[in-house]
Amino acid sequence: MNKTICAISTPYGVGGIAVIRISGPDAIAIVDTLFVGKTTLKQAKANTIHYGRIADLDEGMVSIFRAPHSFTGEDVVEVACHGSLYIQQTLIQRLIEAGCTMAGPGEFTRRALANGKLDLTQAEAVADLIASQSKAEHDLALSQLRGSVSSEIAVLRDRLLHLTSLIELELDFADHEELEFASRDELQAVADEIEKHLVHLTESFKTGNAIKNGLPVAIVGPTNAGKSTLLNALLGEERAIVSDIQGTTRDTIEDTLVINGILFRLIDTAGLRETQDEIENLGIARTQAAIEKAAIILDLSPLPTSPYRGGDIEAERKVIRIINKSDLMSDAQKAAVDKEAVLISAKNGDLSNLRERLVAEAQTLLGRATEGVCITGERHYEALMRALTSIRAVQQGLAQNISGEFLSMDLQDVLTALGEVTGQVTNDEVLSNIFSKFCIGK
Amino acid sequence: MNKTICAISTPYGVGGIAVIRISGPDAIAIVDTLFVGKTTLKQAKANTIHYGRIADLDEGMVSIFRAPHSFTGEDVVEVACHGSLYIQQTLIQRLIEAGCTMAGPGEFTRRALANGKLDLTQAEAVADLIASQSKAEHDLALSQLRGSVSSEIAVLRDRLLHLTSLIELELDFADHEELEFASRDELQAVADEIEKHLVHLTESFKTGNAIKNGLPVAIVGPTNAGKSTLLNALLGEERAIVSDIQGTTRDTIEDTLVINGILFRLIDTAGLRETQDEIENLGIARTQAAIEKAAIILDLSPLPTSPYRGGDIEAERKVIRIINKSDLMSDAQKAAVDKEAVLISAKNGDLSNLRERLVAEAQTLLGRATEGVCITGERHYEALMRALTSIRAVQQGLAQNISGEFLSMDLQDVLTALGEVTGQVTNDEVLSNIFSKFCIGK
Repeated sequence: MNKTICAISTPYGVGGIAVIRISGPDAIAIVDTLFVGKTTLKQAKANTIHYGRIADLDEGMVSIFRAPHSFTGEDVVEVACHGSLYIQQTLIQRLIEAGCTMAGPGEFTRRALANGKLDLTQAEAVADLIASQSKAEHDLALSQLRGSVSSEIAVLRDRLLHLTSLIELELDFADHEELEFASRDELQAVADEIEKHLVHLTESFKTGNAIKNGLPVAIVGPTNAGKSTLLNALLGEERAIVSDIQGTTRDTIEDTLVINGILFRLIDTAGLRETQDEIENLGIARTQAAIEKAAIILDLSPLPTSPYRGGDIEAERKVIRIINKSDLMSDAQKAAVDKEAVLISAKNGDLSNLRERLVAEAQTLLGRATEGVCITGERHYEALMRALTSIRAVQQGLAQNISGEFLSMDLQDVLTALGEVTGQVTNDEVLSNIFSKFCIGK
Repeated sequence: MNKTICAISTPYGVGGIAVIRISGPDAIAIVDTLFVGKTTLKQAKANTIHYGRIADLDEGMVSIFRAPHSFTGEDVVEVACHGSLYIQQTLIQRLIEAGCTMAGPGEFTRRALANGKLDLTQAEAVADLIASQSKAEHDLALSQLRGSVSSEIAVLRDRLLHLTSLIELELDFADHEELEFASRDELQAVADEIEKHLVHLTESFKTGNAIKNGLPVAIVGPTNAGKSTLLNALLGEERAIVSDIQGTTRDTIEDTLVINGILFRLIDTAGLRETQDEIENLGIARTQAAIEKAAIILDLSPLPTSPYRGGDIEAERKVIRIINKSDLMSDAQKAAVDKEAVLISAKNGDLSNLRERLVAEAQTLLGRATEGVCITGERHYEALMRALTSIRAVQQGLAQNISGEFLSMDLQDVLTALGEVTGQVTNDEVLSNIFSKFCIGK
């Protein structure tokens, strides 16, 4: 039988109230030993709240949830007490003295998973949801929590499962070679469809990852173009050291910024120039790497005639050409600027044009994410890539008319990989790894 | 009509769950516009919990409390959502868009006060309870929250109110000088009793204050006695700079420490010696000041024959004589030590004797606090001191047989001062000052 666990579920610190959650077969009985109110909690109806004294330590509200209608699927009690550290810590001590065990990270969610209250992608979405910093990130996590990823994958898996079992039935009747329970044409059609879905899902990871970790935006240009000044102006703080000396920035400097609910990961880089300075040359190599991984490049040149105009930048990435130091330009100069370029003055903090452009480019890049299911977890990506490899082996096998035995092996690999995503196929090590990233109390 | 207010009530930060509290006439209606669950909240019974989608932003639990049976005495809704900063902040925005106003510091408690759910000493106890760091401090705040201070003062005030009104009745019949509705003997007896109570209460402030802010413990002794080493050893961290050079510590260094639930405020001081060093002499003056305000003095002398043995220390304060560097002493030397002294080795961290002794002395000093009502607030102390001064004027007036008119003035002063403590007599400025110290969300 499961132990009854307890933990502080609200953020660490002092506040008006704090909530301590208790889950397990003895949750109600244990809290009852500490609670003095109008009624005993044992007699309390599910989903009701009771005011009383708690462990002669505080006065607070106790909420009762009864299995299976609770977050964990077990009996759950939530105690809302005054939010002093002393009360929170002492109450946890009293609960442990009364028979509770301290919950590990994510242990409540893990029990919810074990009791079928949610599947693995949904459990993971709980952690993502709590860590969300931007609207886009939040929306993806919430969609995943509501089962978007699991239902898409469950549909694929169910169709494949049916065909796989038919093929395995064939193998049982291996003596009768002419028997073909599973239509190869149908299998071909399903495999093609699944391959298409998996390509779509794995491609969505790039977007999902950008949303989760921030859309990488590299700021590049020659030395002294004002790159660090621009970074600081966008962030609204003195993040990077700024000076008139060429080659001030050598390490790449990263920081995140949310504009209109979209998380950007800004990367300030060393200015591109020929130099003998060894450290600076290392920095320039890092600039090239930053360009490689950027989704958007802010190409910052002090003058329209800059020789760096998109020079080393791959055409695939979205490049926003920026003309800085507009405060120093005449109206005639401004009028002569390329219409695609964005005129700014990083020094004066006049960046509204650039912010609007960044949001527009990001929305184009991320547009697909809001339309369909989007993969955000590396674990999911890795499993789906394996599923994709195996389904392509199935497609190839069908084309070569290989035996059901070999088809079955590849099909099993696809089923396993898909099952790992939703947690239908899994092991304790994977689970422990997933839940170790949770906060305690969830 | 009161506005409907909202605020995050749990500590600031990211956690498993966060609670947002909404209070006011439209609390249930406003949350209902954002909530999608099995039932509408308007139909929900008091003290019930409802699961549903909230503002298409999250899925969570909504608790319903109906006036007057809530913390504030108004309709209250508590929304338990996932504890991401994004959800917390966005939900507050949605609530404000839907008609809520952001709550100010302590505004929920202030409404509870306005609706007679608690009196002013209890409201103040809420803030104290949340800020409590030690068991003793917590217990005092909890006792005050449960009405110990208010009920003691209410009893005194009621008895006096009756007699005062009788005296004022006499004044209305001023033409009939012989009339005496209020027995002067009874008034004398009540005044004596109240004076005794007020002396007790105001004296308890010293203890209450020590519990709330920590029992001040000064570490004194000659230079190089190991005072800073002892401070660091007690705190378990390198708080004070330690060196072999005489006069290393010049500023007094303070830090708090909880042993067995008692909060101590340790004060490391400059060593006492004759010196020409100007800064060190300023430090020695501060040592004298620290000794003045200390409740316990740790007199740290390197050898039993130290000339500083209690030298400048007032007899009233509790002095614990400490023999440090026991690791350097022979057994014979140890045996020769005064039985009252505590032998320690700060260097080896062997301090269990000292900790026990500190707790024992503190319990003696604080013993009274746990027996009766104890005043912890400076505001209460100040008002009670005024009440004491005025009741003594009443006693004196009775002894001198002064007219009812003058007695009445002094009695009114006593009633006002007592009423200020419990909030029966108060003004907006005082209230605003009290609640400005609250956290938002309580």
